[in-house]
Amino acid sequence: MKNRIVTVSREFGSGGRTIARKAADLIGIPCYDQEIITNLARESKFTEDFVSAEIENVHSTWFAGFTTGIPTPSDTIWVAQCKVIKELAEKGSCIIVGRCADYILRGLHDCLNVFIHADYEFRAKRITEVYGENEVPTIRRLKEKDKSRAAYYLNYTDETWGLLRNYDVTLNSGVLGIDKCAEVIRSLY
Amino acid sequence: MKNRIVTVSREFGSGGRTIARKAADLIGIPCYDQEIITNLARESKFTEDFVSAEIENVHSTWFAGFTTGIPTPSDTIWVAQCKVIKELAEKGSCIIVGRCADYILRGLHDCLNVFIHADYEFRAKRITEVYGENEVPTIRRLKEKDKSRAAYYLNYTDETWGLLRNYDVTLNSGVLGIDKCAEVIRSLY
Repeated sequence: MKNRIVTVSREFGSGGRTIARKAADLIGIPCYDQEIITNLARESKFTEDFVSAEIENVHSTWFAGFTTGIPTPSDTIWVAQCKVIKELAEKGSCIIVGRCADYILRGLHDCLNVFIHADYEFRAKRITEVYGENEVPTIRRLKEKDKSRAAYYLNYTDETWGLLRNYDVTLNSGVLGIDKCAEVIRSLY
Repeated sequence: MKNRIVTVSREFGSGGRTIARKAADLIGIPCYDQEIITNLARESKFTEDFVSAEIENVHSTWFAGFTTGIPTPSDTIWVAQCKVIKELAEKGSCIIVGRCADYILRGLHDCLNVFIHADYEFRAKRITEVYGENEVPTIRRLKEKDKSRAAYYLNYTDETWGLLRNYDVTLNSGVLGIDKCAEVIRSLY
């Protein structure tokens, strides 16, 4: 059976995770985020900490996989990720944060694919306030995190991350605000 | 005084013009589209037909302007366009369709910048139905129209048309539907 799934892709610090949770509360469906990491660890037999680190950073091991043909830990996690995401979507309607869910579920379920972005100033301010970091992140760090997500997406989907055409709706959380973005997702659900 | 302006950029055949008009009706503000061409003709002293043709197609004369340094008709129209768009925005809150209004009004007014897109199948079907064209447009023709808009935008703004980061909200009218897109614009206004 096809379920109604919302996938939320987001730039680092744009508030996409918070927006996804708020939208899920408004709609009354579960939002999967940290739970995916837990399931990935169980499925791949790696520790949660290793999985978290592996999927958040571009690793040179990825490229080792290309040249040697031997699957890297990241490849193993990707296979697990496809399985876990599909299982969660199969369970029932939900919101899934990140993890290339828009790509993994394409054609399998009735998906609303959302992308959240914001300018560097908004994101730097938000990271300092929400995550209690002492130092304001530099534009360079924000760009590196985005590049890491884009590289991961490209590596496993062969498509461009953050390309307007791949999303049903994209929202600038810095201009529209977190609550309004959640409300738009609810209204489009 | 800063007015609240909605700019609607759109892919050819995506229904952006219809969405802009519907949103303007819902909000209760004017929507400028054909009126801009009329004003451009008045301002530039060209005929409306010439202005329409000139701004809808990429012309080799543009590039003549680059190499000779002599302003082309298109350059004259661009100067008029900046003046006309700014005057319309100054008159009061409104929705402006296309014409690089998002770029021209940046920093001058309180703008909500919207981009409407849809896949080729939806757009081809819509063009046949709405404009009563006998032949279904080919993907090649749709791509050429988009390329023409992108080239115009790049030529006069030095920026990339259809880049997610330049818009506060982008909507896939093929997936969400014309009425829903208008409703989202109203709710974000």
